[in-house]
Amino acid sequence: MKIAILAYDRMTALDAVGPYEVLCRIPDAMVYFVAETPGPIRTDTHGFHSHFALIADARLEDVPNPDIIVIPGGSTGTTAVMQSERTLQWLRTAHVTSQWTTSVCTGAFILGAAGLLQGLHATTHWGSKDYLPQVGATYVAERFVRQGKIITAAGVSAGIDMALYIAAQIGSEELAQALQLAIEYDPQPPYTTGAFAHCSPEIIARAQHEIRSANGMNVPASSESDATQ
Amino acid sequence: MKIAILAYDRMTALDAVGPYEVLCRIPDAMVYFVAETPGPIRTDTHGFHSHFALIADARLEDVPNPDIIVIPGGSTGTTAVMQSERTLQWLRTAHVTSQWTTSVCTGAFILGAAGLLQGLHATTHWGSKDYLPQVGATYVAERFVRQGKIITAAGVSAGIDMALYIAAQIGSEELAQALQLAIEYDPQPPYTTGAFAHCSPEIIARAQHEIRSANGMNVPASSESDATQ
Repeated sequence: MKIAILAYDRMTALDAVGPYEVLCRIPDAMVYFVAETPGPIRTDTHGFHSHFALIADARLEDVPNPDIIVIPGGSTGTTAVMQSERTLQWLRTAHVTSQWTTSVCTGAFILGAAGLLQGLHATTHWGSKDYLPQVGATYVAERFVRQGKIITAAGVSAGIDMALYIAAQIGSEELAQALQLAIEYDPQPPYTTGAFAHCSPEIIARAQHEIRSANGMNVPASSESDATQ
Repeated sequence: MKIAILAYDRMTALDAVGPYEVLCRIPDAMVYFVAETPGPIRTDTHGFHSHFALIADARLEDVPNPDIIVIPGGSTGTTAVMQSERTLQWLRTAHVTSQWTTSVCTGAFILGAAGLLQGLHATTHWGSKDYLPQVGATYVAERFVRQGKIITAAGVSAGIDMALYIAAQIGSEELAQALQLAIEYDPQPPYTTGAFAHCSPEIIARAQHEIRSANGMNVPASSESDATQ
C-alpha cells in the first residue's frame, strides 16, 4: 500500500499532516511525501509568522503508482502548482491506477487543473468555493465529497475526517475506529464557527484577514479573495 | 508574541502541527520550531511507515523567553527527551517567564520530567495515563486540563482544541472564532471511538497494536504498554 502526499512550496502543513497521522498507521502502508524537488518544503506561513518547513523525501517520479494520492492545499503555492505541467502530468498518470485520488482544502484546484474534477461535485476551503466552477466542478458544502474514487475534503482540518473514511474503506470499520482512538480524535471545538454557514459576516471577514495576513498578503479583508488562499 | 514548539527525534507530527496552524495565525505571532540541533527532525513513524521529517529552525537557546511553549509528544522519542538535561533546563527557565506552558499527548511527560506537573491535575494520551503519577501528576480524562498557566492536552489531535482556547485567552473570542473558521475546524469524526471511555477492549487493543506497529515496536497488543508511545 503506497501513499503519496504531494508537497510543494507554500503548502498548508495541517492539510498534509492531518491525513498523514491516520494513513501512516494503516498496516502495510508506506507514505511518501513527493515533490518536484525533494528536500525542505516551506509552508504557506513561512517567512511571515514562522520559518516552518517539512521535508519531501521522494521525487514525484519515484512514486508513479501510489494506491492513495493526497493533494494538500496552500496559499499562493497552489496557484503555482496548478501551472506546473510536470506535477499535473504525474497526477493524471497516477490517477489512472490509484485506488483513491484525494485533495484537502484548495488542493481541489490542483485536481481540477489536472482535469480530474470536470463535471463533478467537489468541496474545498470555504474561502475559495466560488472558484470551483473554473475547474469544471460544482461546490458542495460537505466535510468531504466522494465521487467514485475521487474525494475532495473541505479546508485544512477536514483531511482528518476524510482519512478515517478512507481507512474504513481500504481496511475495515474496526481499523478506522482504532485509528481514531490512536490519535484520540474526540474533537471538542470551542465554537460552532468551523463552518462558514454558522458565521457572522464579521467573523468571516476576520478569518479572511487573518488567513491573508499569515500568508503575507496584506489585502483588506473586505476585498475580493483570489482563487486560492 | 514568541511561540516555541519543541521539536525532537521521533516526535508525533500532528501534536505539533495541529497547534501550529492555529497559533501561527495569531496577529504578531512568530512561531519557532526549537530543537537541541536545528535541521531535519524525524517523526515517530519515520523509518517504519514513512521517512517523514519536519525542520526545526532554531536552537533552544535562540528562543529563551517564549510567550507560549508547546511540547508535543512522541513515541520512544519522548522518553529520550525526558532524560535530556539540556532540554529540561531550557524548559524550566522558559517556564519562569512564559504566559502559557503547554503540552500535547505524551509531551506531558516532558513537562513532568522538568518538575512542572508536581501535584497538578494533567492529561496525556490515554495509552500513557497510568504513568502520570510517576511525574507527580493526577490524570484527568479531559480534552485539555488547565492549571494556572500550564495546559496539558490529550492525545495527538487534542492540541487543536487547546490552541483555540489559548487564542481566545491571549486575543479574544472573536479571534479564536475566526481562527476556527480559518482552518475550517468543523470536525465530523465518523465514530465515537476518539475517547477510550467509549471503546470496547477490542478497539483499544487494536489501537495499541497499530500505534506500536507504526512506531516500529512490534510487541503483542495484549502486553503492558510502556510509559510513552
